[in-house]
This record gives sequence, structure tokens and C-alpha cells, in this order.
Amino acid sequence: MKDSFEVPVMMTKEDVTMMILSAKKQAGLTWEEIAEKIDMSPVWTHSACMGMNAFPADKAAALVTAMALPQEAASVLEEPPTKVWEQSVPTDPCIYRFYEIVGVYGPTLKALIEEKFGNGIMSAIDFDMTVTRVPNPKGDRVKVEMSGKYLSYNSW
Amino acid sequence: MKDSFEVPVMMTKEDVTMMILSAKKQAGLTWEEIAEKIDMSPVWTHSACMGMNAFPADKAAALVTAMALPQEAASVLEEPPTKVWEQSVPTDPCIYRFYEIVGVYGPTLKALIEEKFGNGIMSAIDFDMTVTRVPNPKGDRVKVEMSGKYLSYNSW
Amino acid sequence: MKDSFEVPVMMTKEDVTMMILSAKKQAGLTWEEIAEKIDMSPVWTHSACMGMNAFPADKAAALVTAMALPQEAASVLEEPPTKVWEQSVPTDPCIYRFYEIVGVYGPTLKALIEEKFGNGIMSAIDFDMTVTRVPNPKGDRVKVEMSGKYLSYNSW
Amino acid sequence: MKDSFEVPVMMTKEDVTMMILSAKKQAGLTWEEIAEKIDMSPVWTHSACMGMNAFPADKAAALVTAMALPQEAASVLEEPPTKVWEQSVPTDPCIYRFYEIVGVYGPTLKALIEEKFGNGIMSAIDFDMTVTRVPNPKGDRVKVEMSGKYLSYNSW
Amino acid sequence: MKDSFEVPVMMTKEDVTMMILSAKKQAGLTWEEIAEKIDMSPVWTHSACMGMNAFPADKAAALVTAMALPQEAASVLEEPPTKVWEQSVPTDPCIYRFYEIVGVYGPTLKALIEEKFGNGIMSAIDFDMTVTRVPNPKGDRVKVEMSGKYLSYNSW
Amino acid sequence: MKDSFEVPVMMTKEDVTMMILSAKKQAGLTWEEIAEKIDMSPVWTHSACMGMNAFPADKAAALVTAMALPQEAASVLEEPPTKVWEQSVPTDPCIYRFYEIVGVYGPTLKALIEEKFGNGIMSAIDFDMTVTRVPNPKGDRVKVEMSGKYLSYNSW
Amino acid sequence: MKDSFEVPVMMTKEDVTMMILSAKKQAGLTWEEIAEKIDMSPVWTHSACMGMNAFPADKAAALVTAMALPQEAASVLEEPPTKVWEQSVPTDPCIYRFYEIVGVYGPTLKALIEEKFGNGIMSAIDFDMTVTRVPNPKGDRVKVEMSGKYLSYNSW
Amino acid sequence: MKDSFEVPVMMTKEDVTMMILSAKKQAGLTWEEIAEKIDMSPVWTHSACMGMNAFPADKAAALVTAMALPQEAASVLEEPPTKVWEQSVPTDPCIYRFYEIVGVYGPTLKALIEEKFGNGIMSAIDFDMTVTRVPNPKGDRVKVEMSGKYLSYNSW
Amino acid sequence: MKDSFEVPVMMTKEDVTMMILSAKKQAGLTWEEIAEKIDMSPVWTHSACMGMNAFPADKAAALVTAMALPQEAASVLEEPPTKVWEQSVPTDPCIYRFYEIVGVYGPTLKALIEEKFGNGIMSAIDFDMTVTRVPNPKGDRVKVEMSGKYLSYNSW
Amino acid sequence: MKDSFEVPVMMTKEDVTMMILSAKKQAGLTWEEIAEKIDMSPVWTHSACMGMNAFPADKAAALVTAMALPQEAASVLEEPPTKVWEQSVPTDPCIYRFYEIVGVYGPTLKALIEEKFGNGIMSAIDFDMTVTRVPNPKGDRVKVEMSGKYLSYNSW
Repeated sequence: MKDSFEVPVMMTKEDVTMMILSAKKQAGLTWEEIAEKIDMSPVWTHSACMGMNAFPADKAAALVTAMALPQEAASVLEEPPTKVWEQSVPTDPCIYRFYEIVGVYGPTLKALIEEKFGNGIMSAIDFDMTVTRVPNPKGDRVKVEMSGKYLSYNSW
Repeated sequence: MKDSFEVPVMMTKEDVTMMILSAKKQAGLTWEEIAEKIDMSPVWTHSACMGMNAFPADKAAALVTAMALPQEAASVLEEPPTKVWEQSVPTDPCIYRFYEIVGVYGPTLKALIEEKFGNGIMSAIDFDMTVTRVPNPKGDRVKVEMSGKYLSYNSW
Repeated sequence: MKDSFEVPVMMTKEDVTMMILSAKKQAGLTWEEIAEKIDMSPVWTHSACMGMNAFPADKAAALVTAMALPQEAASVLEEPPTKVWEQSVPTDPCIYRFYEIVGVYGPTLKALIEEKFGNGIMSAIDFDMTVTRVPNPKGDRVKVEMSGKYLSYNSW
Repeated sequence: MKDSFEVPVMMTKEDVTMMILSAKKQAGLTWEEIAEKIDMSPVWTHSACMGMNAFPADKAAALVTAMALPQEAASVLEEPPTKVWEQSVPTDPCIYRFYEIVGVYGPTLKALIEEKFGNGIMSAIDFDMTVTRVPNPKGDRVKVEMSGKYLSYNSW
Repeated sequence: MKDSFEVPVMMTKEDVTMMILSAKKQAGLTWEEIAEKIDMSPVWTHSACMGMNAFPADKAAALVTAMALPQEAASVLEEPPTKVWEQSVPTDPCIYRFYEIVGVYGPTLKALIEEKFGNGIMSAIDFDMTVTRVPNPKGDRVKVEMSGKYLSYNSW
Repeated sequence: MKDSFEVPVMMTKEDVTMMILSAKKQAGLTWEEIAEKIDMSPVWTHSACMGMNAFPADKAAALVTAMALPQEAASVLEEPPTKVWEQSVPTDPCIYRFYEIVGVYGPTLKALIEEKFGNGIMSAIDFDMTVTRVPNPKGDRVKVEMSGKYLSYNSW
Repeated sequence: MKDSFEVPVMMTKEDVTMMILSAKKQAGLTWEEIAEKIDMSPVWTHSACMGMNAFPADKAAALVTAMALPQEAASVLEEPPTKVWEQSVPTDPCIYRFYEIVGVYGPTLKALIEEKFGNGIMSAIDFDMTVTRVPNPKGDRVKVEMSGKYLSYNSW
Repeated sequence: MKDSFEVPVMMTKEDVTMMILSAKKQAGLTWEEIAEKIDMSPVWTHSACMGMNAFPADKAAALVTAMALPQEAASVLEEPPTKVWEQSVPTDPCIYRFYEIVGVYGPTLKALIEEKFGNGIMSAIDFDMTVTRVPNPKGDRVKVEMSGKYLSYNSW
Repeated sequence: MKDSFEVPVMMTKEDVTMMILSAKKQAGLTWEEIAEKIDMSPVWTHSACMGMNAFPADKAAALVTAMALPQEAASVLEEPPTKVWEQSVPTDPCIYRFYEIVGVYGPTLKALIEEKFGNGIMSAIDFDMTVTRVPNPKGDRVKVEMSGKYLSYNSW
Repeated sequence: MKDSFEVPVMMTKEDVTMMILSAKKQAGLTWEEIAEKIDMSPVWTHSACMGMNAFPADKAAALVTAMALPQEAASVLEEPPTKVWEQSVPTDPCIYRFYEIVGVYGPTLKALIEEKFGNGIMSAIDFDMTVTRVPNPKGDRVKVEMSGKYLSYNSW
């Protein structure tokens, strides 16, 4: 649409996500299998492939090889992302349930963290998470485990 | 402020929460200790004392005894609560971090639940949660474990 | 607009919805007739064709045949959707009236579910719905029937 | 707080709701039983007692008698209410699920109403609703039935 | 932008609106003149041409002829629209003034409708409206007349 | 609640509205009858009694006499009000329908005003309105007539 | 992107704004100089060139000549604009400061207008404005002068 | 409502505003007359009396004398206020019109300030304003004059 | 307002803030002087006195002594606060300017932190801040210095 | 998409930002190195390259040379920007933490500025900022230093 001057086009995280999703579908891989190929957890792998986390250099190289991405994709995967999410109240029921849990149990999480640790918070940066399926005769259950470093408020 | 007619005053969940908090402070109890007294988990106990969950009749009776609440409080504790939370974006840093996790990792939780279970969600109703302190030489960590029943979407 | 690298294009649920709508118009079919062809209800069929529900594999295959869609569309129909809706307050009068009903009668639905079942909710996941026209001399009526599994809150 | 002049205090719908709730608790009645006493449906009875619908004069009189309310309450029950609800996105999980259904299935309801009736809507004014418990070996189900008059858009 | 598969393009109400506006400008017609050609009111004609109301079949045919639109446009004009408007608070001063009137006089309209009719509303569906210019020595006036069917709330 | 100094209490428009409503109920008057007593229209009378318009001095005096208000109320009725309304999207169905009309027909009102008058707006200040009941065999209709001075945009 | 039918393209106010900005840059003109060429004020000229006000026919012709715009642009400049602005709280610091002034001094402007004129407002339609630079040894000052017709509220 | 401990009550700016308004009404003074008594402008005087600006010590003393306020009020008048205003979109028509002017003419003010001064803004802090009534045979006009120091953006 | 049962009243952080403000005014102390008395920084001292940070036990005791607060206040000062702030866009000009800085320079802070440290953030928990006055012949300047621990994103 | 007339394309600040980012990546430069090349601070340089500040003419020329941008880019870099930022509550954790600091410490910054300077604010226009890395054995720290001119409120 620009005609009298050239605006360069840089590969974006969205572009690379599209390349990964396309390669994943063609190869018939699951996120667990991709995670295994680069020796990382499935939660982190999906999140980083979606552009919500940055790859360390070796993991970027491993993914480029495993999914046959163009070489330029590696440096894009390594860039720190700008994390943007769409809505303050998510509409998808699967994501909304987690949002509801934070609404209902947020003050409880706060009270118990303060009771066990003192005045501070759980870091969402020095943080990891897993999702597992727990068999149960009354219906299998989703188990989500989060672990974050405790950070104490400073007084100065 | 009403002078010509009488509006009855009913004990509310907020009133009972105030009674519990006052008794807790006076007795110097922690939420863990209160939970132990009624043989329930600390997460559920705090949440129900805050008025965000309903007590089964025997647990309501146990709490009334343990905290020396007025007898009328038992029926109030058993009422199903109307769960209200204040803001779509929480301001308290400790609660905000959990909200941020849902924003950043929500689509990842969804993708992995679907990969492991099929088209469905984790229930936030048939649900339980624990908070524990995990010692760590680089700084102790907060561990949050959630477990919810998997619910499959209907086709009809 | 990308010139120095290739971003793959994947068929989306929106693309398939467009294909269905176009085929439906050309064939002059109603949603009831399409639903009959794949032996499902009209409510579910419309919702899934709009990309708001996932097709079981056999139903996806049936729709692809019935509407002469490209073969690739079947796997797209089977993907779990990310359910997104536009506004917290819908503007279309036909949809707004249902939103108004939830606003006006929401606390009533809650009170009666609790009275009949205990402390819990009606599932919106293990859920089905029908719409029928009821003849009436004072003007025909729209009848909407919803049925969802009762889910009881956990205490733990 | 006013000292040099008198501001009259009028009985409000909130006052009467408080009187009903208090009488209901003391008498140990359910909403179904109250509805029976005034020969109306439980949905309408609860909604009108909450101040979200107006009582016809005979029903107001019946309720005043049945619940031993002060005589002045009858005229308050008959007043057309100003319907106010708190939030565009409800937080209580039981009400939220209905809101979610409108979000997910709103366009489907619209499409099927238009297919069956033409260009128009279901009235939320000339409207009634029931809630029933349907036994089911896999877990009982909540059944909600709505019926509203079809209104056709005018062309002029 | 799609290269390996074909997504069909369907004529939309927006497309037809563009065709009408272009033909209107070329022919130098006013909305009053267009309304006259199809024997409908100017308010309804403009609204339906903007895609906010559906044409009866004969009126769609008349407009296609009068404005020399492509034949396919007729079925598009007949489709029930999804009414979407942009903002809760309109910015255009001409539209804002009407929004202000509803804000300032809304409770008054409600009180007088209830006084004259009972507990109910004016329908916005079985509804019509006119705009006229009223000469006045102190400055001409805009006269807007709305008429909607009274709908009484149901008790059941 | 103030103990060491005195904060004066001034009669507010809300106080006077309460006095009027109480006197109106006791006397069993309608808004039409009150309007007649002060020789103004019912729309303006209700709106000004609700505190959304200012009374001319003679009309304030007339109302004070007609409703037996305290003398101080007259000057309060004459004060220019600060017009505040509650929500951008009204929840009461009777008021919402008018809001919906502005949303759906706002651009149409604008187009026709511009066609009949030129580039300008209808004043909401130099403005009046009436509500009447129009008998109709298919159901009586609400008629709302608005008239506002045309204001032309300035060029300078 | 449309292939089987033709959607006409009409010149918009945005298109004409682009033409003016491009011609202005190429000719190295200021808004003051453009305003002079068409013998109007700089405030109105900029606002109308941005598409926020309509040109009288002679001024549209003058601008088309002065800036060498295509002939079709004249009729577009004459169209009454739909005034849309982006955000309720402007982010640009230069515009925000004016928004802040309205927030801080709005009630003061209202009180003084009412004190000097009675119950009414300053029109924003029959309105004009100038911006001038006032030399000052402590730092030059921006002077903004607004003038709008006083409009008195109607009583009827 | 506090019974076992004493919470001190401090005089607030709201309290002093109430005292001023009450004294003003009793004395039958206008804002212009009050401003004259303390030798300041009416705009600033009203704004500072409303608690939106801080009084210099001598002006606070002058007002306390002029309006016979309690001595303690002087120090309250001198406190820097926390400026809070109610809504992003004001509902009162008189204030809304100014908000509309900022929306419509904001980019124009910005463009002309930049053209006359360079890259910077008009200060809303080092700022003053007047309101005057300008007689006009076609209807008197409100004149608002703002003057603020030009602040240039820093480069560093 | 409760008559048939007793709801205990607990001293809140708001109560203690009121006690501090009252004592501060009576003693004519500045925040700097209070901070000195308890040997902490003025920023932290003000923030903790306002209830936005928790006091270590020894500092709470020191403040109780220094300001002659009731003994019970000490434990309230030690409680971890729930941090709540009023608006997403602050209206007070002094606070708004900082909000504007985050809006304008937020992406710059992010880019430079990432350039200097890698993929991570500055902690707002392990954090301190000072405000100082820097003399300057062109007008004194406010200097704000923030220091927060760098936290690196986890990969797992 | 325009066919019958030509809309000119002007180089925008977004275009120039893209050119800079592309040149920066190809040359492997950091923001610190680019800042050094034009002899400005890294904070200002990044911000101005992102289009959030205007370049003085000599700095624009220097950047065009240093990064080999097209000549036309210089005048674009000199244009005063319209500063727009995306959301009132930023989602990226690195930026959010600064927003949180303003929320938590905003009133403290205000109180201390007023204590040290009087009634006024810190300018965000006559303003500069630096970011530095401070080595620390417990983990390096981010230091942010802001300096803005104090502006005193006017009384008039």
C-alpha cells in the first residue's frame, strides 16, 4: 500500500507462532512431544511458542531444528516478548474458570501466603507450572501445580 | 433512620466474618489452627469463613463451638453465598500476580487440558486447592496445587 | 505484505463458517434441515457451525459430505474452539432480551436451584438447549428449554 | 443527621424484602411453599419478593396475610419496580453460567428464532419461566424453561 | 491472503449499503425521495438501508429497481440484521443529544408510562418514528414522534 | 459523627423530592394531577420534582402551596440542578428500550435532521416532550413527542 | 478481496484529509496560512480539514483551488461529519491538559454560567474559538478563547 | 459505631465547603461578591471554595473573616487538595458541552499550539481562566478565556 | 443499627491512619520528622502510615510511642495490608503526571531493562524509593529515585 | 482498494520506527550504542525512536546518517508526536510493575512533593529519566532516576 518508499518487514513472534502451528499440524505432533524434543516442560513450551515467553538460545536452536523453521526464526524466539492478553474478563469457559478461581480464592491465597511467609507475595516471574491428568473413578481430574519464589516486601 | 415502621435486622455472612476475625485475633489462632479444629483444609476454611463458601451443617456447628460464636451464626454459615469480588483487575500485588498468571498462561492451560482430555474444561465447582511452603536454598517457594474435575462439552 | 519469508496460512474456523454459510445459501437450506442431515439438534448444529462448539469426528465427516466442504475442513471442525463473544452488553435486541432475563432473574434462578439442589450450580458445559415455536391465539410464543447437569460445590 | 427540617421516610421495596426474608426464616418456609400460599409460580414469587416485579393487588394482599407483613407493605409490593442489577459481568458462579450461555448461544438463539418466526425477538416482558429438578442416574439436571411472546419488527 | 484453499465471499449488508450510498449520490436523491419511491417512511427507509432493519420482500425488490442495484442485493436486504452500535456514550453531538434526553428524562418516561398504562414498557420492536421540521419564528424546531406498543409485564 | 465542630446541614433537592413523594402518596395524587395544579406539563413536572430541572420562582411557590411543603423548599426547587444519571447502559427495561432506540435509530435521526435542516443538531436544552396513550384495537400504544430547537453549527 | 460483485468506492473525509496533509507538507504551508487563503479562522480551518466540521460550499471551493485538490473533494468537504473521538480519557499530554481543566473546573464553569445567566448552558454548536501566543517574560503563554451562545433550559 | 476506642474526627475540605455554601446562602451572596471580598477572581474563588484548589494563607484568613467560618477552617483551606472528579464522561449538560469541545477540538488545539510554539503543551497548573457574559442581539454569549504557560518538551 | 446480636468492632488500618493524621496535625510534624523519629525513610513511612505497607514490629512500637497512639494500634500497623487504589486513571494532577510517565516511557523502561539485564523485570516488592528537592536556577526540580531487584523470567 | 481517485501516502512515525528497528537488528546495535552515536541519553533516544518524542533537527539528521535512513525520515522524526498508549492497565509484567508503583506510592509522592515544595506537581514535560544497573551481591538492581521541574499551582 506504500508506493514511494520502502518500509522493511521484520519477522514477528506472531509469524513464528504461525510457522510452528503449521508444522505441528503437518507433523501431527502434540505439545508434549514438542516439549520433549527440546527437553523443556509442556507448559513453558506452549507458552513460549505462543510468544508469551522468550527462548534461551540453545532451546531456540533446538526448536528451529525440530520443527524445520527458517533460520531467522531463532533470534525472534529469543526476543523478550511484550505480553498482551485480550480482556480483563476472559470469555472462553476454560480460561474463565481459572479467572473465577482467582476472584473467589484470591484473598484466601493472600491470607495463607502471609500466614506461612509473612508480608509478601508469590513471584509470577521466578515461576513454573505443570498440568497433569489424575485418573479418578468419579471422573478424571485436572491437576495444576504452580510454584513461585516467595518475595518479601522491603522496608526502608 | 426508619421511624414509623420496623425493618427486621438479619445476621449476615459479613457479620459472622467479623465475629470470627475478632475471636481469631483474641485467641491468637492461625487459619491452619482453625482449620484443624474443624478438620477441614486451611484454603477451604478461610474461604468459607470469609463468606465465599457454604459450611456443611456439622462443620458449621464445629466452628460455632470452636470460636464461641452465637448459636444463630450456624445457619448463616450454612447459607449458599452470593460470591462477589470487587474488581476485574485486582490491585493488591499478591492477588494481582495470580491474575497475571491466568492472563499469561490461560491459553496454555486451555491447550494442555484439551490435549490431555479432549474438548472440555476443569471445573471450578468440584474443585479443591492447597497452599504449601517449599524450603529452597535460593529462597523458599510458594506451592499452589489446584485440582478440579474434568467436564466434557456436550454434543446433542 | 510479507516479502522475504513465507508465513503459512492455516484454515480457520472462520473460514469454514464462511464456507458453510455460502453452501447453505446456495442450497437454500435451513439450520433445521442441516441439523437433520447430520442427526444433531438445530441449536448445537448452528452453534458448532458458527465455531462455538467442536464437532465429534463422525459429525464433522457428515457435515463435510452434506455441505460439500473441502476435506481439510473436517479437522478444523473438530478443533476445540476458543469461545469469544463481542461485548459485555449485547446490542442486538434479540440477544439483549436474553441478557436482560439473566440480569432480572439471575438471583431467582440461583435461589431456586439452591432450594431444590443445595449449594451448587447448573453446568454450562454438560448442557443442552432447544428452541421451539408454540402456537398461541394471542400471538405465538418462543419456548427455550435449557438443561444442565447440577454440580455441587466441594468442601475439603 | 438532618436537624432543622424533617425529611419523611417512606417504606421501600428493600424494606419489604427484608421483612419477607425475616418472616420466611422464622417460619422455615421455602420459596415453593410461599408461592403455593399465594397461588403463583416460584420463579415469579421469588423475583417479585426480591423487588424485581410488581404484585397485582390481590396477590399483594395474599402475601401480606401469609407472611404477616405490616398493612402498608401491600402498596409497596404493587409499585412498578425500577429494575437494577449490579454488574455487566456477574461474579457469582451460579449466575455467571447463565450469562455465559447467553454469550455462547446468543447468536444461535437469534438465528433459530428468525428461522422459525421471521424478523423479530422473544419478549422479555410478556414472559414466564420455570425451574425444575430432573432426576438422572448420571447426576440430576437443572431444567430451565422460558416462554416469551414473539414480537415482529415493524416496517412503516 | 489465503493461497491453498478458497474462502467464498458473500455479499454483506455493508456492501449493499455502499451500493445504495453511491447510487444515491450519483442520482442526487434525498432519503425522502428514496422513501417515496418504495412507499415507506424516511426513518424506516434510512434505517433499513443502513442495515439496521430488514426489508419485506416487495420493498427489497422495489429498492433494487429504484436504485439499480445488482439482483443479489435483494436477498441481502431481506436478511434480519444483527444490530450493532459502536459506543455506550455516542460522541457525535447530534446523536449525543438524544442519548442525553434518555439519561435526563428516562425515569420520567418510565413514571408516566406506568401512570397511564400500569406496570409495563413501550415496545422498541413494534415501533415507528417520524422526524419533521416545524417552522417557528424564534428558530425552526425538530419534531420527533415515536409510537410503540404498550407491553404489560406478565405475572405467572 | 462530627463532635468538635458543627457542619451545617442544607436542604437538598433529594430531600425535597422525598417530601414531594411522601405528600403525593398521602394525598393519592398522580403526576398529571400535580402538573395540573401548577399549570405545567406532566413530563416537565415529574422531571423537575425528581430534581432534574429547575423551577421558575412562581412555579416553585405554587408547588410548595399545592403539596404543603416547608417554605425553605421553594428556593431549593429553584436551584439549577446538577444532572447526574446512573449508568451508561440503563438496566430498567422501560428505560433501556429508549436507550436502544437511540442506538438503533441515532444515525437515522442525524441523517434526516441534516437532510431537512443542514449541518446541525436538535437542542436538548430548548426542548420539550409529551407522553400520551393512544387507544388501538391491537393493543394501546405509547406516543412520545419531542420538540427541540434546531441549532446550526457555526463556521468562523 | 470481493470477486464476484463490485462494491463502489466513495471518497471519504479521511481520504480528503490525507490529500490536504500531503499538499500542505509539499507546499510547506502552516494552518494559519491555509486559513488565510480561504479567509476563515485557523481553529475552524484545521478542525474542518481534519473532518470534524463541514465546509460551506464557497469555502470548500476555495480550499479545493488553494490546495489543488480533485474536484470531487469539494462535495465531501461539505458533508456534515459524524464526529468521533477516540478515548474518554485522552492520552496525549497536550490534549489531556484540556481534559483535566474540564474535570477540575467543570463545576466552576457551571456555577458561574448559572450565576451570570440563569439555568442553562453554553452551546458547543453555535460556538467559536481562537488560540493565540501571548509573550511573557516568565515564559510565553497559550491563550484559548471560547465563545458560545447561552441556551436557557425550557420549562413547559 | 466504634465503641471500644476513639477515632479522631478531622475537619475536611468537604466540611468547609458545606460551611461556605451555608453562609453564602444565608448572606445571599454571589460568587462574584465573595471573590471581591478576598480580592481574587471568581473562577479561582469558586474552585478553591469547592476544595479543588489551595488557598494562600492570607486569602484563607480573609475568607474565614468574610464568611465567619470557624478559625480551624483556615488551615483546611490551605491544604493542597487531592483533586477527584466523578466520571470520565460528565452527565451534566453544562459540563458535558466543555468535554465535547475537548473531544472535537482537542487535536486542533494541539496542532495550533505546536504550530505557534513548537513541541510542547499548555500548562494546566500555571494556569488561569475567566468567564464573562457578552451581550449579543441574537442572544448573549458565554466567553471563556484560558491562559496557561507554554511548556516545551525536554530532550536529554 | 444491629439490635438483637452484637457484631464486634475491630480497629482498622483506616482508623489508625486517622489517629496518625490527627496527632501529626496537632504536633505540627512533617512526614520527614516522623520518619526520622522511627529511623525509616519518608517515602516508606508515609506509605505505611497510609496503610499501604506493613510495619515491622519494632517500627510499629516506635511509631506508637512517638505519636502517642493507643497500644492496640501496634498490631494493626503490623498487619499485611490489602493494597487498593481508586482508579485506573488517577485524576489528581500530581499523581496523574507519574501515570503519564509510565504510559509514555513504559516501553522504553522495558526495552532498556531487557538490554541491560536480559528477559525479566524490576521488582515492585523488593523495592525502595526516595524523593528529593534539587535546587536549580531555572526552577527547582523534583528528583525521584526508584531501585528494585532485577527478577529474571524462569524457563523450565 | 481505491480505484477512481488517488489518496497520497505519507511516511508516518510508525514507518520510520520500522526502518530504525530493521537497521538496528541488521547492524547488531544496542539502544545505548545508538544513543551514543547521536549524543543523547538512551531513555530519550529509545522513546523518540518509538515515536513518543520529537527529534530536534540536528539530532534527526544525525540519526538519519547513523542508521542510513531515507532522507524524508528526518522531517518525520521532527514532527511532534501524538502520544497514544494502549491500555489503562498495562498487561506486560515489566510495565505493569511501574503502574503498580504509581498506584501504591502515588499519594506518597504527592504528599512528599507538597511537603518539600508546596502546592504543585512534578512536570512530566520538562522531564528526564535514566535507567542504570546497580551490581548487588544479593542480585543486581534496576535503578530508575526521574527528574522533573516543580510547577506551582497558580492563584489568580
